[in-house]
Amino acid sequence: MAYKDEKLSEEKVFKDPVHRYIHVRDKVIWDVIGTREFQRLRRIKQLGTTYLVFHGAEHSRFHHSLGVYEIVRRIVDDGFDGRPEWNQEERLVTLCAALLHDLGHGPFSHAFEKVFDLDHEKFTQAILLGDTEVNAVLTRVADDFPQKVADVIGKTYPDKLVVSLISSQIDADRMDYLQRDAYFTGVSYGHFDMERILRVMRPAEEQAVIKYSGMHAVEDYIMSRYQMYWQVYFHPVSRSAEVILTKILHRAKHLYESGYIFKQEPGHFRSFFDRTFALEEYVALDESILLTYFQIWMKEDDPILSDLCYRFINRKLFQYAEFDPATEYRKIGELEQLFKKAGIDPAYYLLADSSSDLPYDFYRPGEENERLPIYLQMPNGELSELSRSSDIVDAVSGKRRTDHKLYFPEDLLEAGKETNPLYGRILKLLKG
Amino acid sequence: MAYKDEKLSEEKVFKDPVHRYIHVRDKVIWDVIGTREFQRLRRIKQLGTTYLVFHGAEHSRFHHSLGVYEIVRRIVDDGFDGRPEWNQEERLVTLCAALLHDLGHGPFSHAFEKVFDLDHEKFTQAILLGDTEVNAVLTRVADDFPQKVADVIGKTYPDKLVVSLISSQIDADRMDYLQRDAYFTGVSYGHFDMERILRVMRPAEEQAVIKYSGMHAVEDYIMSRYQMYWQVYFHPVSRSAEVILTKILHRAKHLYESGYIFKQEPGHFRSFFDRTFALEEYVALDESILLTYFQIWMKEDDPILSDLCYRFINRKLFQYAEFDPATEYRKIGELEQLFKKAGIDPAYYLLADSSSDLPYDFYRPGEENERLPIYLQMPNGELSELSRSSDIVDAVSGKRRTDHKLYFPEDLLEAGKETNPLYGRILKLLKG
Amino acid sequence: MAYKDEKLSEEKVFKDPVHRYIHVRDKVIWDVIGTREFQRLRRIKQLGTTYLVFHGAEHSRFHHSLGVYEIVRRIVDDGFDGRPEWNQEERLVTLCAALLHDLGHGPFSHAFEKVFDLDHEKFTQAILLGDTEVNAVLTRVADDFPQKVADVIGKTYPDKLVVSLISSQIDADRMDYLQRDAYFTGVSYGHFDMERILRVMRPAEEQAVIKYSGMHAVEDYIMSRYQMYWQVYFHPVSRSAEVILTKILHRAKHLYESGYIFKQEPGHFRSFFDRTFALEEYVALDESILLTYFQIWMKEDDPILSDLCYRFINRKLFQYAEFDPATEYRKIGELEQLFKKAGIDPAYYLLADSSSDLPYDFYRPGEENERLPIYLQMPNGELSELSRSSDIVDAVSGKRRTDHKLYFPEDLLEAGKETNPLYGRILKLLKG
Amino acid sequence: MAYKDEKLSEEKVFKDPVHRYIHVRDKVIWDVIGTREFQRLRRIKQLGTTYLVFHGAEHSRFHHSLGVYEIVRRIVDDGFDGRPEWNQEERLVTLCAALLHDLGHGPFSHAFEKVFDLDHEKFTQAILLGDTEVNAVLTRVADDFPQKVADVIGKTYPDKLVVSLISSQIDADRMDYLQRDAYFTGVSYGHFDMERILRVMRPAEEQAVIKYSGMHAVEDYIMSRYQMYWQVYFHPVSRSAEVILTKILHRAKHLYESGYIFKQEPGHFRSFFDRTFALEEYVALDESILLTYFQIWMKEDDPILSDLCYRFINRKLFQYAEFDPATEYRKIGELEQLFKKAGIDPAYYLLADSSSDLPYDFYRPGEENERLPIYLQMPNGELSELSRSSDIVDAVSGKRRTDHKLYFPEDLLEAGKETNPLYGRILKLLKG
Repeated sequence: MAYKDEKLSEEKVFKDPVHRYIHVRDKVIWDVIGTREFQRLRRIKQLGTTYLVFHGAEHSRFHHSLGVYEIVRRIVDDGFDGRPEWNQEERLVTLCAALLHDLGHGPFSHAFEKVFDLDHEKFTQAILLGDTEVNAVLTRVADDFPQKVADVIGKTYPDKLVVSLISSQIDADRMDYLQRDAYFTGVSYGHFDMERILRVMRPAEEQAVIKYSGMHAVEDYIMSRYQMYWQVYFHPVSRSAEVILTKILHRAKHLYESGYIFKQEPGHFRSFFDRTFALEEYVALDESILLTYFQIWMKEDDPILSDLCYRFINRKLFQYAEFDPATEYRKIGELEQLFKKAGIDPAYYLLADSSSDLPYDFYRPGEENERLPIYLQMPNGELSELSRSSDIVDAVSGKRRTDHKLYFPEDLLEAGKETNPLYGRILKLLKG
Repeated sequence: MAYKDEKLSEEKVFKDPVHRYIHVRDKVIWDVIGTREFQRLRRIKQLGTTYLVFHGAEHSRFHHSLGVYEIVRRIVDDGFDGRPEWNQEERLVTLCAALLHDLGHGPFSHAFEKVFDLDHEKFTQAILLGDTEVNAVLTRVADDFPQKVADVIGKTYPDKLVVSLISSQIDADRMDYLQRDAYFTGVSYGHFDMERILRVMRPAEEQAVIKYSGMHAVEDYIMSRYQMYWQVYFHPVSRSAEVILTKILHRAKHLYESGYIFKQEPGHFRSFFDRTFALEEYVALDESILLTYFQIWMKEDDPILSDLCYRFINRKLFQYAEFDPATEYRKIGELEQLFKKAGIDPAYYLLADSSSDLPYDFYRPGEENERLPIYLQMPNGELSELSRSSDIVDAVSGKRRTDHKLYFPEDLLEAGKETNPLYGRILKLLKG
Repeated sequence: MAYKDEKLSEEKVFKDPVHRYIHVRDKVIWDVIGTREFQRLRRIKQLGTTYLVFHGAEHSRFHHSLGVYEIVRRIVDDGFDGRPEWNQEERLVTLCAALLHDLGHGPFSHAFEKVFDLDHEKFTQAILLGDTEVNAVLTRVADDFPQKVADVIGKTYPDKLVVSLISSQIDADRMDYLQRDAYFTGVSYGHFDMERILRVMRPAEEQAVIKYSGMHAVEDYIMSRYQMYWQVYFHPVSRSAEVILTKILHRAKHLYESGYIFKQEPGHFRSFFDRTFALEEYVALDESILLTYFQIWMKEDDPILSDLCYRFINRKLFQYAEFDPATEYRKIGELEQLFKKAGIDPAYYLLADSSSDLPYDFYRPGEENERLPIYLQMPNGELSELSRSSDIVDAVSGKRRTDHKLYFPEDLLEAGKETNPLYGRILKLLKG
Repeated sequence: MAYKDEKLSEEKVFKDPVHRYIHVRDKVIWDVIGTREFQRLRRIKQLGTTYLVFHGAEHSRFHHSLGVYEIVRRIVDDGFDGRPEWNQEERLVTLCAALLHDLGHGPFSHAFEKVFDLDHEKFTQAILLGDTEVNAVLTRVADDFPQKVADVIGKTYPDKLVVSLISSQIDADRMDYLQRDAYFTGVSYGHFDMERILRVMRPAEEQAVIKYSGMHAVEDYIMSRYQMYWQVYFHPVSRSAEVILTKILHRAKHLYESGYIFKQEPGHFRSFFDRTFALEEYVALDESILLTYFQIWMKEDDPILSDLCYRFINRKLFQYAEFDPATEYRKIGELEQLFKKAGIDPAYYLLADSSSDLPYDFYRPGEENERLPIYLQMPNGELSELSRSSDIVDAVSGKRRTDHKLYFPEDLLEAGKETNPLYGRILKLLKG
């Protein structure tokens, strides 16, 4: 039997708190899960610094990836199989893309990518196509199979229906992470009737669509997503930790570039500072290594690096203030001057951060959309974009909401305000 | 106002998936949570290697500790307060002991303690009494307060009722971990009606007791515990990972003692290998540091160390076989000889492991019991030991159940059995 | 001790699937629950005919009433007690009003009230003030106490804060029924973080308000309500049963007024047909009595009455078609003509039904609002109406949505269309 | 296409709180659900009088029946289909038997059967084989099909594997009711991992068996059942209501037989009193009719009948005392004498009730067992009875536990004890 068609002699299951069980029958899927590149996802948290606010959110990208696979498996095997619009030959590439869509995420990926100017999606593709265990498994299916999986993830795959299952405004990725992040944080948002959505999802030419009778379940999903963004993902305290993390990496890079001699040689980082790193070095990184360095750096002589690391490791985070860039841009300049006068480097201690979300977007002619809009299949068979039928979705459609905050070390300023009147002035300006 | 009586201006809450919310009103509790020694528990997993089987079990001891605190808080504030058998003066020491009972756990503590011959409870006490942030907070309450907290945890505190809330056969520790581990693994065991148990728990002279009307809820709790032990805690696959982990540490220690030159100096481990480590060095350890070393050691020249590390990091675990030490002790000797002949060191590759649990135990006159038995308060007010009233508890009472397994690298033996007939013989002997 | 202050020697609890436990400590509350008028609510379903679509929805108004009581108890005892804006003297009247707000509901109340032109709120007040067991209990508190409870329910009570807990756009009534109806139907809508809402609810002069930080929990509540209306409460199939039920009562009344001789004397209904009934006769009615009559009437000679009863009892409901009264009013007339020609009485077999909901409404100057809008307490202490801060609530605010359907006996028409071409024409006109 | 193979053009689903969705694809199943005999189950409560203690337990046998069907459907379609031990030709008869196994239950069936000496299983078979809508549907499958369904329910069907799915010690009936009753009462017992049990259930020659690896899930199921019996099904307060209910029916029968003239002719009961009732009359009964009569009888002149009805309708139940028939049989006699002296008829006011359960039973050679024991399929393929492998199950195996209570009108005795010293003596004897 061809490798692509091989089945395990007995179905394997993973116990999963979100989907109850994750079922694996294909030998290819089982082998992919066993590769070191996939196992590495156990050492990358799904929600980065969020566990510092919602303590349950310590879950890794490993099971989110399994979850996305499981949702796609149900769509394809229980919902699409046998319908004329769906080509069952696409099954395996779809399942692999679902499982592997996050493969290239680095440790604390947003901060890491920002400082080193990287893109995790490129690394996903590089790992799929490079000299890796996962590439070896996929190549056993067919020589061009790794490239196909990479194309689905890169959204250049010809069958757009396949792409839409992994990456649209109602894809398996989002459906898994909303539920999973809600479960592990323990918040009561993030619940929607996925079973119903899967029942009303239909294959269409360019993408999966939703039967009209399932519109309310989709509305609920959009609202869940909206709530999760503002209640969990953009929580100002986890952004404080994120800001500090970014600045740690910036500072270390800056010190390295300035010729600073580290007490302990930053071996894992050298090639990143130099931008000469090989794929293997990227794959070798994970969050335990970063946390280990931060603890080592806590003992470095550079006061900024050691202070920021101490803050991150021991959760002595920055405080925040609301801030409106449109009207308060002068205030920033003023504060920066005061910080400098007070001997505190504003590049590391006065930090603006913006979070912004578009809960749902329809298609705008002439513009390229990041994500496909959601289409309803009306009783007469025609497709109709969701926001035309749903008042609630229409209300949030295309409306970007942004939140601006200014982060600063309130503890330090409070502790010193008696002896240094500048500290008091800064605090007053910040806290109004 | 005395520090011990200070309240936060507004109650703080932690969102918790198990107890919904964890409530903190005492300034002392808030300050303890903020110490670096308590924050370190975020970097120690509650269930060690179990996440390699139940992928959701990535949760840390940090929130288990908060959970135990919350349960004790509810017992004391909602159930005991106002009853003559309870002294509300003991409230704060009880809450602190609940919060801090796991403070001394090291990374992957069972394996670590075994190899370096340590005892986490001693470290808990050492951290409470040493030059630490947590000691500083507790000392603000009273000079002897850290010692009191340590005595509760060490079970030498004079008020046995206080001790029993943290450490008995139905204490807040067990009630939290059963529910929490069930939640994060996703198994359907581990549920019992804690709210009912808390409602029927009464303070008595030597320990907390249970009103007779709550007996069935307690039975359910005992059964939950029994199931969690055999389904989750003793799962043979996580024991495989545990066995490998132990052997990694053994090997590294052995190499160090033999004068092996490590490519990268094992700085964090040196004083442990030498048994000269200071408290500060113990506290500095966590699981990210161990994981970082294991990845570094994957590249060491010693083939055993690098192989074991590779296995742990990439989850290429040992297979297991059932094994009865009473009747099969000769088989072990035979296997060891075969391993040696085949050039595989049995000290690292043929490993017996036993797990053993006593679901519930009554008191045996003349013997010292590790844990207090559970007493029911009968309608006439008398106390009666649980197994006298409950058939089900009586059935499991005092009956230790043990499971023996033999772990070995099946993958290596399978791969080599064609070229080396000894491998085949070993496999046959192991797998029958 | 005054009766109003008497406590039970031991707290009583009811096991409740929604709130886990309902706690009763006040003797007055316990006695009220024991009255026959309150126990009668066990024989009135919370959701009328909805159980014919969502089979789990067989729950009664009895536990909804307990649930509203429990929510108010938590608000008052855990949240409001001790705050200057709240007068703890109002506690008992508030709890009683919560418990008794639905006391006057008749069997299948919407249909029953419509046909006999009654108002359940008036009956609630009549039962409270009449010669009833519940009046006797309340009078023991104080002579004017029954009137006070009635005034809260009638929204004429001077302390508007008390009224708002039972009857506003975010009251305990709605918070209980959304969760309870979601639980018993099994739908995934209807969940919101009530515990958080209770934590951020604050007493204010005219009504309970919500701290700004809880806005998202309130948004979630509004959206839950919206979904429950359209997914559950307005489900077209339960409206079909409701339409039939209404027509059964109409027909029986019509027959009685026309001098029809019933095979079995309709004793319980006579005084309702005559509009001479006494309070005692109203209280004696419940849904088992109605269901018993419908089964008796199945055997009456009048073909319309017996057919409608058969349909209701055996769930042979009417089919429905979409219908727009603005543009299709002529179609109704045409259909009525056809029905008459075909020998089917359109007054009983061609029925228009409209359901309409306003998910949330702000205050309109100069207009009287049925329900108070929701106010947020902003960080600066000022109150601000919810839709000003919430985009999502603003989107649905003040927008009434209405659904029109036309109900008809498709089974009868389908069965006869071969022999009677008029039936075919009717079907074609109805189903397009 | 043969009627037995007809599928609905689109799968129908019922929203179910326990199984999420119940799926119907077979036309036969859909038609059976639509019959009046099946719809009647909506008017029979699953747990009789239990709702008077656990207020959520108002659910009907209608959805329990759907639930049993759904479990069997999953076993057959997802687990058994394709395995050689299973004959897919048995699918439809198995599904119908699952759906219809409770069809013959009367209103408050235990009490009703006891007083009128009936057996619901016989009525199930009579309805299946009589002149009924359900018989008409089943006969369309094949002339002998109704008999086959009746044989499965009567346990005389030749294929014992089919019988075991509906009726053994781990059948779909029990698996549904434990979960459903737990859900609607809200108790935390009754949960077990059914999904796992379904995954490890295998068809064997004489019955369904369980793979050894699923033993712990089965243990958990047995313990759930044990807890549900003692916590819910045998709750002393619902037994009080049951005792009263039984005595109402006894009294009415007794009055009828004594020639008592009822104010309102007891039409629905006459043929039962006479034991001349036809099947149609049995099917016409339901709980609303009984409740209606009880309310009518509250106004009868007979003081016993009217008092008992008042008690049942308004939940003024009897109190209970523990009682050991082995040692206290004399006390009963003494009490009866006292009751008579005091003018209270002990036949209606002093009532012994025993509840008894055997949590699990193995097979005893030479004895006929009511229910098949559970067999594990060991790794070597052999079958082994469960209690041999499970210590916990062994502990409860074959051990019948019985609870005896004595019920009496404490309210009446308390109210009269001042004026009648006999009442005081009775109370003292009863309450010790």
